[in-house]
Amino acid sequence: MAEGSDDIQALIALIARLPGLGPRSARRIVLHLIRKRNGQMTQLAQLLDSVANASRECLTCGNITDRDICAICSDPARANGEICVVQDVADLWALERGHAFRGRYHVLGGTLSALDEIGPEDLGIPGLIDRIASEGVREVILALNATVDGQTTAHYIADALESSEVVVTGLAQGVPIGGELDYLDDGTISAALRARRSL
Amino acid sequence: MAEGSDDIQALIALIARLPGLGPRSARRIVLHLIRKRNGQMTQLAQLLDSVANASRECLTCGNITDRDICAICSDPARANGEICVVQDVADLWALERGHAFRGRYHVLGGTLSALDEIGPEDLGIPGLIDRIASEGVREVILALNATVDGQTTAHYIADALESSEVVVTGLAQGVPIGGELDYLDDGTISAALRARRSL
Ligand SMILES: [Zn+2]
Ligand SMILES: [Zn+2]
Repeated sequence: MAEGSDDIQALIALIARLPGLGPRSARRIVLHLIRKRNGQMTQLAQLLDSVANASRECLTCGNITDRDICAICSDPARANGEICVVQDVADLWALERGHAFRGRYHVLGGTLSALDEIGPEDLGIPGLIDRIASEGVREVILALNATVDGQTTAHYIADALESSEVVVTGLAQGVPIGGELDYLDDGTISAALRARRSL
Repeated sequence: MAEGSDDIQALIALIARLPGLGPRSARRIVLHLIRKRNGQMTQLAQLLDSVANASRECLTCGNITDRDICAICSDPARANGEICVVQDVADLWALERGHAFRGRYHVLGGTLSALDEIGPEDLGIPGLIDRIASEGVREVILALNATVDGQTTAHYIADALESSEVVVTGLAQGVPIGGELDYLDDGTISAALRARRSL
């Protein structure tokens, strides 16, 4: 056993599986943490435990929160008649960092995919349609990735809302072909939101 | 608050400070963990907590272990009369992965540095000299980084051991100028160890 103890090896293996990491970076991180075992490492263990226990999906929008209804859905000032539909919570976070959108969100948690057998119900699209009526929504902004799956999903939602009174828009300029929202800078994402177009 | 809760923001900030990470990679990791909050995330919290509580430095060699004396120092088969001196536990792990060295280690925990006021006592060099007598050591292999500080430290130890019977060697070929052991592949490190030369 090269790395100290079974638990240390298990810890390295677990961290190596996190996105963007591997065995080498995991070993560096674990040694760094062991050096700070009375401070940073204990604090990290406690925060992971409390976030794991407290986190859940907002019952309304799917955002990650520590209550039943997230801070955005609970804030009356965010009920401005606009709902921004995103694939993932990471995209919601990216939009919030841009400070350009003052309405509410709907997190799909993925895109439609025949291959992976992901249908409209799996993405909470019926729930979105319910919200449009109950929250008096005037505009649905489809802020989906500019990928084939993202755009297929955007068209599906636009079609499903065609018979309703709601205006359906999509992010316009600024999102590069094949680009993913979470990787754009805040300025680009704000510009794309301001220049949104009718679908 | 863009990211769900105060604890989620604190967790992102803590992970962003780990070596090789930043805010973007920390956000990706935290979202990934929250998705696996009943499995991987809880497991990670528990392992971090148990490694933080159990880990300490081996009283003999400075290796990270979960007992007073590490597995290598406790193994009579590793008492082959050779001690390999390394700067850091990461270097010990790298040598163990290479499976080329069957003796014991001495972890300095740094290099001599007038600037940072790190002297021989801070690196456990007196302890190394004690071990040479008490463990019947015949050869001390200085496996230090090929940096100015590493080589200054190697020369200091070689000088300190000049009056003893012990043979002092250093890693020979394979360690590039300015290179750090932890970044070498296993084959290179094994070759450098086999071709070690007398100082
Ligand atoms: Zn919500
Ligand atoms: Zn030891």
